[in-house]
Amino acid sequence: MTPGRFITLEGGEGAGKSTQLRALAAALRGRGIDVVETREPGGSEGAEAIRALLLTGGADRWSARAEALLFAAARADHVERTIRPALARGAWVISDRFLDSSRAYQGQGELTDADIVALHRIGSEGFLPDRTLLLALPEAEAAERATARDGDAPDRIGGRASDFHRAVAAAFDRFAGDEPARFRKVDASGGAEAVTARLLAALDDLVP
Amino acid sequence: MTPGRFITLEGGEGAGKSTQLRALAAALRGRGIDVVETREPGGSEGAEAIRALLLTGGADRWSARAEALLFAAARADHVERTIRPALARGAWVISDRFLDSSRAYQGQGELTDADIVALHRIGSEGFLPDRTLLLALPEAEAAERATARDGDAPDRIGGRASDFHRAVAAAFDRFAGDEPARFRKVDASGGAEAVTARLLAALDDLVP
Repeated sequence: MTPGRFITLEGGEGAGKSTQLRALAAALRGRGIDVVETREPGGSEGAEAIRALLLTGGADRWSARAEALLFAAARADHVERTIRPALARGAWVISDRFLDSSRAYQGQGELTDADIVALHRIGSEGFLPDRTLLLALPEAEAAERATARDGDAPDRIGGRASDFHRAVAAAFDRFAGDEPARFRKVDASGGAEAVTARLLAALDDLVP
Repeated sequence: MTPGRFITLEGGEGAGKSTQLRALAAALRGRGIDVVETREPGGSEGAEAIRALLLTGGADRWSARAEALLFAAARADHVERTIRPALARGAWVISDRFLDSSRAYQGQGELTDADIVALHRIGSEGFLPDRTLLLALPEAEAAERATARDGDAPDRIGGRASDFHRAVAAAFDRFAGDEPARFRKVDASGGAEAVTARLLAALDDLVP
């Protein structure tokens, strides 16, 4: 049995993570790999219940501190109940968002990056992906895609101001710079198939 | 305006915390103090929603790690939305359980006491009670009271084995020994009125 691999897709709103996750999973299945597609917050029964608390209600429903703890609780459940069991049977797991989204979104205000990392140590024994694919778009293109992609109102977190989303993009860049072995920054502009090809190339060293 | 005070009642199942909280609040009101009665997990709108996740479902619904994070999230909401605002207007707040219950119940297995205290630092800036009243009963009497007090099935946490509850009682004793200025250990045996009188005496230095 080849070892399971844990891959995360990260990036701001509108970078195409959900579309690319499906395409990437299909491409890996085409190579004979058992692939589990998942997402955060959520991805397990308990984590989905926490997701409902996190993404509904007014913008001030949760303080930054309570929000960070809820994300970490959902992640603890997701890691233990979905991700680790899938990896143990040799599957690959691809998650739309993971720890680095918490670091980028919750770790820049009242809480520090070290706080978010501490929550992950306590909640999930610091469990990290084998590879994190950072989908990067020029800011103007990301904003356009986020606005255009559907007619729904944004959720509690997607609806925040553009300064906030700029800070998030800068934070992802810092994380990628700090951990070059784990991260690959992938250009998300252009056609979807070209982006998928770039993502696959960024996994070349892991594919059997 | 006299300063608000934050008082917590702690102890194992069946020690009479809920009954004593009501009696203590009534006695303090009789002295002209504005008293807010609250409880954990819960005590604010968000924390009550988290409470519903914590206390329902099977015994293995949450891992120890996820459970500790959910308690800390509920506490963060409770402190920010209920406790701090009440203290700021000069009220006294009495809570049935607080941080020390998390330390006693969640901080003795996979997670350490230092982990639980770290979660409280991140979630609630380490906010501590002015006084913690530890209701202590001989083990046999506590078990008898817990069984007798109502016909309901115990909840997810109250239903655990007696070894666990013994370890909880020992943990509370350690915490009280470590912080003598904050804790008062109060004998909870005998009639309810006598216990309330002991609790009031343990607040003598705080009452105006």
